Amino acid sequence: MNVLQLDTVRLSADRTCLEILDQTLLPNTIKMLKVSRIEDIWEAIKQLRVRGAPAIGVCAGYAIALTASQIDTADQTEFCEQFMQQKAYLASSRPTAVNLFWALDRMEHTMRANLVKPVAEIKELLFTEAQALRDEDVAISRGIGEIGFGLLKHGDGILTHCNAGTLATAKYGTATAPIYIAQEKGWTDLRVYCDETRPLLQGARLTAFELHSAGIDTTLICDNMASIIMRRGLIDVVFVGCDRVARNGDTANKIGTSGVAILAKHYGIPFYVCAPSSTIDMSLETGSQIPIEERTPEEVTEMWYSQRMAPEGVKVCNPAFDVTDHALITGIITEKGLCKAPFDQAFAQLGIGRQK
Amino acid sequence: MNVLQLDTVRLSADRTCLEILDQTLLPNTIKMLKVSRIEDIWEAIKQLRVRGAPAIGVCAGYAIALTASQIDTADQTEFCEQFMQQKAYLASSRPTAVNLFWALDRMEHTMRANLVKPVAEIKELLFTEAQALRDEDVAISRGIGEIGFGLLKHGDGILTHCNAGTLATAKYGTATAPIYIAQEKGWTDLRVYCDETRPLLQGARLTAFELHSAGIDTTLICDNMASIIMRRGLIDVVFVGCDRVARNGDTANKIGTSGVAILAKHYGIPFYVCAPSSTIDMSLETGSQIPIEERTPEEVTEMWYSQRMAPEGVKVCNPAFDVTDHALITGIITEKGLCKAPFDQAFAQLGIGRQK
Repeated sequence: MNVLQLDTVRLSADRTCLEILDQTLLPNTIKMLKVSRIEDIWEAIKQLRVRGAPAIGVCAGYAIALTASQIDTADQTEFCEQFMQQKAYLASSRPTAVNLFWALDRMEHTMRANLVKPVAEIKELLFTEAQALRDEDVAISRGIGEIGFGLLKHGDGILTHCNAGTLATAKYGTATAPIYIAQEKGWTDLRVYCDETRPLLQGARLTAFELHSAGIDTTLICDNMASIIMRRGLIDVVFVGCDRVARNGDTANKIGTSGVAILAKHYGIPFYVCAPSSTIDMSLETGSQIPIEERTPEEVTEMWYSQRMAPEGVKVCNPAFDVTDHALITGIITEKGLCKAPFDQAFAQLGIGRQK
Repeated sequence: MNVLQLDTVRLSADRTCLEILDQTLLPNTIKMLKVSRIEDIWEAIKQLRVRGAPAIGVCAGYAIALTASQIDTADQTEFCEQFMQQKAYLASSRPTAVNLFWALDRMEHTMRANLVKPVAEIKELLFTEAQALRDEDVAISRGIGEIGFGLLKHGDGILTHCNAGTLATAKYGTATAPIYIAQEKGWTDLRVYCDETRPLLQGARLTAFELHSAGIDTTLICDNMASIIMRRGLIDVVFVGCDRVARNGDTANKIGTSGVAILAKHYGIPFYVCAPSSTIDMSLETGSQIPIEERTPEEVTEMWYSQRMAPEGVKVCNPAFDVTDHALITGIITEKGLCKAPFDQAFAQLGIGRQK
């Protein structure tokens, strides 16, 4: 089973349900969840059965196209009203997921722009728009992948952190895209090392799973082993994803990313951030303006475990993200091109952050 | 309950059994295991109920003093024979624990040096020697602690990795000794951060437990959070233990230590190795001569967990130790004094490695 051929989220062939690869069951069970009721779609997003900003966006597009197709009216005003109720309900599933709102807004725009047309036609256009949204996401990943692929040599060892993989997008991922593109081109000699990424273990449960299932030479390590692996000369390049990039190139990504960047610098290994241009926020001067979410202590002390792994009452620090200083970043790979320092100028040259 | 007052391993007041704090039950259950049969002592060492090189040495000293006291003969030759059988049996409990053999050899030496005396007297001298061995270990930790304490300022934040704590020694630990000494001197404003230390979680299960139970301000973090904690200015100094130090100062210690050292250097934070002088091996020119134990993949993918956390069949790298380059080490704190680079000269000046 190659997860690349499986799709993170898709519409069923007869367009009656959404098929979601249930990521809460990974890596032990591979199950495509079939959902058609809006409540079940809401639950799937809420419970992280589908996760990763781009994948959530794609899921939201398909979701509202599907639920809108179930609206039983030929009256445009009535259709619009019910659509907006569905949109508000779906948006409440993960109130901090920016891509969820972005995708739903885009679908609303398509609906409103065509509201003079027959309802059956609007429904069709919504399916088309959801598919376009998905195809664009794949194109962005492919774009990043092609540029990242150009940085690889045969036999390279690649380190990645957390999951910026196909599971977090419609296909290819961001940090994993160069690896999958290389595989499509017939390369069989890349070696990938995955940090397990405590506390939520996305590297072990998701990245190691998807790369291994795609037939790529994959080795799982604990986060604290990256240094010895680099020292042994096993890593030629680091690719990571990102949540948000400031104008100066400072990058917020999963906790631990900044440590990997410092190790890479120490060992003289190039460190690349793979970033859809939409994650570059030109309104932020530096990374210090990016708020860091602090999560519950139990993720560190209890989650996944068969028993509690730390003394009762001990303090726990559990930041979900950290900021990697731009000076540690060799390059930021967007679908529009490879950016090098000074990053603000490189972003501007590619037209990133300009009004659309 | 303050673990410092609990003793990692001790002889019962009536000298009929060994009392061992069962570390396999920590941090959830605090139980002093009482063992007097040699088979039960063997099992306790084998199953890591007592662990940490110095603590194993102390345990072995008490163990053979106790089991030798049970030998039912007044004949010295017969006593010697049975002692040697006991020694061989106890030595087989952990065949790679150098301190185990070292302590047993020392006890044998005491036995042989006094073999002309009545058996009852030899038995008494063995108890005395075991107690001396324990007291020396405490003195070494205190020595390291006093020197490390001299490097601290009020309000300091201290990062430590793995467990080089009181649980790994007779008392005080090595990396934790400066903290406990500060507490004895009435300091109440130190803040300690413990790396959880994957995959075996000694930092979470043992170090966070012992420091928290001793009433010290303790915060547990995942290994990959050290960078953000340092970036936030919360760490003023790093103290770690060591397994073996080469002549040039290269230091083998628990996996992840070298990464912490690189982060400390990046953020300009002093990084100290706390090393009983016995761990400094002047026969090794550099750390590259120290073999690194590779352990089973299941420690990373399954151990502690309620279910498997990585895909079946994925490769896993699980080195138990790494080597920290001497250039990353601010100082090596031995019980004889603080050593700074060039370390070989500093060791020689303190008489370390000279024939005794």
